[in-house]
Formats: sequence, C-alpha cells, structure tokens
Amino acid sequence: MKKVLCGVDLGGTKLSIGLVSNDGQLIDRRLIYDHKCMPEDMVTEQIALTIKQLLKANNYGQDDLLGVGLGFAGHLRFADGVIITTSNLSGFKGYPIRDRLQAFFKVPVIIDNDANAQAYGEFQFGAGKGYSDFIFLTLSTGIGAGIVINRKVYRGFTGTAGELGHTIIDPRSEFRCTCGNKGCFMACASGLVVADVYRKKVKEGKKSLMIHEENFDFRTIDGKFIKTGFENGDPVSIEIIDEFAAYTGIGLYNIFQTFNPPLIILGGGLTHWGDYYLDGIKKKFYSLVGDMLYDPIEINLAVLQDDAGLIGAAALTKELFL
Amino acid sequence: MKKVLCGVDLGGTKLSIGLVSNDGQLIDRRLIYDHKCMPEDMVTEQIALTIKQLLKANNYGQDDLLGVGLGFAGHLRFADGVIITTSNLSGFKGYPIRDRLQAFFKVPVIIDNDANAQAYGEFQFGAGKGYSDFIFLTLSTGIGAGIVINRKVYRGFTGTAGELGHTIIDPRSEFRCTCGNKGCFMACASGLVVADVYRKKVKEGKKSLMIHEENFDFRTIDGKFIKTGFENGDPVSIEIIDEFAAYTGIGLYNIFQTFNPPLIILGGGLTHWGDYYLDGIKKKFYSLVGDMLYDPIEINLAVLQDDAGLIGAAALTKELFL
Repeated sequence: MKKVLCGVDLGGTKLSIGLVSNDGQLIDRRLIYDHKCMPEDMVTEQIALTIKQLLKANNYGQDDLLGVGLGFAGHLRFADGVIITTSNLSGFKGYPIRDRLQAFFKVPVIIDNDANAQAYGEFQFGAGKGYSDFIFLTLSTGIGAGIVINRKVYRGFTGTAGELGHTIIDPRSEFRCTCGNKGCFMACASGLVVADVYRKKVKEGKKSLMIHEENFDFRTIDGKFIKTGFENGDPVSIEIIDEFAAYTGIGLYNIFQTFNPPLIILGGGLTHWGDYYLDGIKKKFYSLVGDMLYDPIEINLAVLQDDAGLIGAAALTKELFL
Repeated sequence: MKKVLCGVDLGGTKLSIGLVSNDGQLIDRRLIYDHKCMPEDMVTEQIALTIKQLLKANNYGQDDLLGVGLGFAGHLRFADGVIITTSNLSGFKGYPIRDRLQAFFKVPVIIDNDANAQAYGEFQFGAGKGYSDFIFLTLSTGIGAGIVINRKVYRGFTGTAGELGHTIIDPRSEFRCTCGNKGCFMACASGLVVADVYRKKVKEGKKSLMIHEENFDFRTIDGKFIKTGFENGDPVSIEIIDEFAAYTGIGLYNIFQTFNPPLIILGGGLTHWGDYYLDGIKKKFYSLVGDMLYDPIEINLAVLQDDAGLIGAAALTKELFL
C-alpha cells in the first residue's frame, strides 16, 4: 500500500487532523473544537489518538505512515520544537510539542508555524510546484509569509524568519499592530485594522453606503463586510481596498528587492476581494519596480484552499526526506 | 608554494586589482584610474594583464592562482556573468564580463556586485567568520546588502537579491532615491540624501553652526561634513544623525523580521559617524523588537576596511570550491 502523510493544523478555533496522500490529496480528516479547554499534554494525546484512529479507519497500518507534520499559529523554536508564543491559544508557551508528539510515533514528527507549512504545501502540491525558490504571502486577519529557498523552508536562527507582516512599511501610520508597533505591513493592510480604518474614514465624514444605524458597532467590520461593500459600490469599502492594495504592492516590492524571487504566491482570505484588489496590488508593484526588473516575476494565487493548513503541515514531512 | 587568490574591485572611480592570501591578507595590489576612458574589452585585457604581472612580481606561477573574483558596482545577471546596470561607469551594459575575463585564465572567474563581494569577504575573513547565515549591510553613499545563507551568498533569480537599500520604509517621505521612488531605505538614511536633508532643515529655520556664507553650496555636504558638524555640536548635524539612525534601526528591524539572522554586520562610511550613531540605530532596533526577540542577535561592525571590495572579490573565489 502507498505511504500516507499526516497533517495537523493546530489553531485557536479548531484543530484539524488529517491523512494526505503522497500527491497532496486529503484522504480523511477529523475536526476538534474542544481542545481549547484541554491541558497541553491532553491535546497532544488527543492528536496522537486521532491519527491512529484515522489510519485504522482508512485501512492504513502504522508502517504506512511517512511522518507527522504539525502547523501551529504562533512562534516556535524550530531546532528543538518548542512553542514560544501563541497567537490565539492559551497555554502552550514553552511546551515541547514536537518531542511530546514524537513519543507516540516511530516516524518523524516535524512542527512549524502555519505560514511556513502553507508555503511548503504550495511547494509540494500547489502554485510553487517546480520552483526551488519563492515567497508565499498570506493576506488575512494577519499577514504572514513563508520563504522557500533551495527547495526548503528558510527559518532563520530561532525559526521566526518570514515574519514579513511585522516589517515596517509606513512608520507615520497611526494604526498599531498587535506587536505594539505602528506602520508594520500587518497594521497597514490586514484584517486586523480593517474595522479601525473604516471607522476612521466614516468619522472623518466619508459617506458609507453600508452603515445606516446610529449605534453601529464598527468592531463587526471584517474582510467579508468590505467585499459586500465593494460589490454594492460603497465608496468607503472601495477606498479601503485601494489603500490595502497599494500597501500590499509596497510589501511585494520589498520582497522583490530583498529576495529577487522568480515567484510570489498570494494566499489568505483577503485575496477573495478579487481582481480589483489583486490588480491594484500589481499596479502598485510594477509602478515601484519600474525598470529594475530584469527577469519576469510571477505573482500567482495560492492553489491550496480550505485545508491549506492541514495539507501544508502534511507536506512538511516530505522536507525531512529531501 | 601556497595557493593565492585574486580580487578585482571595478568601481567608477578606481579599479583595484590585488593578490590575496588564502587567509585574507592583501599581498600586493595595483590601482588603475584611467579605465573610465577605455572600451570594455580593453578594461578586461588590462585586468588580465595586471593579474599576470602581479603574479610574476610576487613570484607566483599561474598554477598558484586559485581563482579570480571581481566585484562590480551595479546589477548583473549572476548565472551568465553579464552586466545589466552600472552605478557610475559608462558602458558595460550587456557586457559579458565574466566570459571575457575567463578567456584569459584556466582557473575559474566569478563576478558579483560589490555588496555581495564584501559580505562574502566578511564571511571568509571578517566579522562573519564562523557564521553560516548573516546579513551584511553597507551604509554609505548608497545602502546595499549581501545575504549569506548556508555559507553562500543568496543572489535570487537574476542576481539582484539583497537590494535592501531600495526597500520602502517611509512612503510619506519627500526624498527621492536615484531609482525614482520616494521613501526607500537609501532615500531615508544614506549619503545620497544627506545634502538635501540638511538644506531642508536650514531652509525651515534650523540653526546651523556649520554654515556662515550666504551663498553656501549645500551640494558639497556629505557624510564627513556631518561628522565634523556633530563633533562641533552643530544641532542640524546631530538631528540628521538621529534621524538616519532611527531609519536604519527600522531597516535592521525589517531584516530581523525577514531573516531572523544570528548576526547583522554593518559596514560603509557612515559607520564612521561613531558610537552616537550606532547606539541610535540599536536603540531604535530594540525599541521595535520589544519582546519578539527569542534568541540574541549580534549587531557588529565590519572588519574589512580599506580594501574590503578587493578582498571580498577575492573571497568569492572560495565559494566556488565549497
């Protein structure tokens, strides 16, 4: 029987555990939502148990498993597999998740942050197939990235390389990131600030077609709200998409000058804003690049969608055998 | 007899050609200033001839030469060794300098831009010794960088990776870079804009201790002028050093978030502004980094000084044998 990969996407909202074929097809998966209330060791045990159940339910033996990959929303020290920070899960700080999970398996366990996992998923099974170098950028509630160099994820000293969302691109911006700084890429053009930017524009007198109640709760504004606004011709939503696209064009330009990659892959929920947004990004990018581009660069959308985190985590196991 | 390396630093003002020992000591060198008036092929021939003369004068045979490295001030396509742009030399665009120079030698010839050469020189013989990954940043008339990853220079697709001077860090800045864009790192904190920033401050009413004539030519202001100003307590010079240090702190912070390197090496003439400037850079860097630094990062000065370009170019030949 063919070898099978296992991917685990450990997020704050849900924990997905799945089996993935050698060519990146999701075979089966389980979703867990009550992991938020469990102590760390119980979460690890639950993951291991679920993997064994999944193997059995799909007629795989333990010998068919190539490896277990886990993608995590937060920082971790890659070399020793210890979690340093978590974006939206309590506990887990300082938890040696790799070794604890490894104790349940003979095959290798690899853990990494979710953006790196998604980048590597695109390398193995998606838009990055056939490229040895590219940058994956996820535009979502936050902004993250994964750097693929020479067919491997580039992780840096600790394992936190690729935090492009925290690079500062407009120090005069008034909007602050969760990291505490103003003007980082994430504080300029991610879901994190969409509500604040909208509110500011309305308070300054911009006319919104989307807000009719006097006591409207601006905190409910998210990417989907902006998309609906855009589709309904709301000038505030359009302006936000214009501004986010321009900032993201700067982000891409900085990636170009830093890495000179043949390919940048864009993923994340904001890409669903569609062509108007994506064209705006490219327009700003090429206006900055001018005559400094000596070989063409591809700017393509991510291929992996719904289960990108899980499939990416499974893909990471393949890096171990390169 | 020990093997010897050859380095060539081809700049707009001078052409230096030298022999360098295997451990990075300059053995002998020739300086040429009239290369600016020569056609490209004649420059190449002159370089080859001078290398052969240097070998003979220092009692080396052609068999003692390990390789020839050439550092060039401009962009080049690394894979085929062809020059794309030149910073301050006329001609040379599209010139296949590597192959033309290779025709004179049996040993390998490697060419790269000067920042990459200097970075690799620091790796082999200077502040980067013993590190497999680091970023070298040169703060000078312009700002350039060399990325060393896994003991090699990371060059990207064309060979223009590491152009950190062109990454945009303040899009609302009024100062423009030679690339045409506003607010790139180089247009915020390099020698390129020092005169413009000084003039602006004086025109706005800031009191300079350095300018007494009514028809003072602001274009003569350079890094040395600012250093003298600083040493004499000139408030405009001090303010410029403060601002440049803060921008450079942002530049270093962006390097940290992007590469998470164990080491950043600072080189270039502006580092001679001294401790006040360097401390300002670090102060801004650490204020932005906050609690996001999980392992210490070293920020050290470059070791190679006067002949950094030549010695770095010679060092590149060693990369060929890794």
